[in-house]
Amino acid sequence: MVEKLSDTEREAGLRGLKGWIYDEAAGAIDRVFKFKDFSEAFAFMSRVALAAEKAGHHPDWSNSYNSVSIRLSTHDAGGLSARDIALARAIDKILI
Amino acid sequence: MVEKLSDTEREAGLRGLKGWIYDEAAGAIDRVFKFKDFSEAFAFMSRVALAAEKAGHHPDWSNSYNSVSIRLSTHDAGGLSARDIALARAIDKILI
Repeated sequence: MVEKLSDTEREAGLRGLKGWIYDEAAGAIDRVFKFKDFSEAFAFMSRVALAAEKAGHHPDWSNSYNSVSIRLSTHDAGGLSARDIALARAIDKILI
Repeated sequence: MVEKLSDTEREAGLRGLKGWIYDEAAGAIDRVFKFKDFSEAFAFMSRVALAAEKAGHHPDWSNSYNSVSIRLSTHDAGGLSARDIALARAIDKILI
């Protein structure tokens, strides 16, 4: 069982991320990624899919042409857990 | 420029599809696909991505673990066009 982060833990976790917005009502973090076109967006999605499968933790996400919106939350924990911060970090690393 | 389907054309097009719901307000067709797990869902998404890129026509879609929701619409035509029906048909063929 993964535990929901405390306020202090969440703030520390978010400080290490770039561009992720915390949605308090949903207990989730969101980020939108923009690319040149669909091909580039889906290449990114393929890498995110591999990272998610490796982590055993999966995003709620959507795509429209060159835009990819990712939401991370841990349903079992009823909010944000360390797994979300770790996956967000792994996703950010794909773009470096 | 792709033209929006007439009511008769749209009804004929939809008759050839399985499980797609016409959203009149949005001028779009929607279908939700369920799979065993994320790996199976993303494998399907990869094939849809290839079909979309080949068609030069792309879905608005989202994924949450084993569920993939696809919306097709032709923004340039202000509603449903023959391209949407053709892509829906190509997506359905992936599952056969």
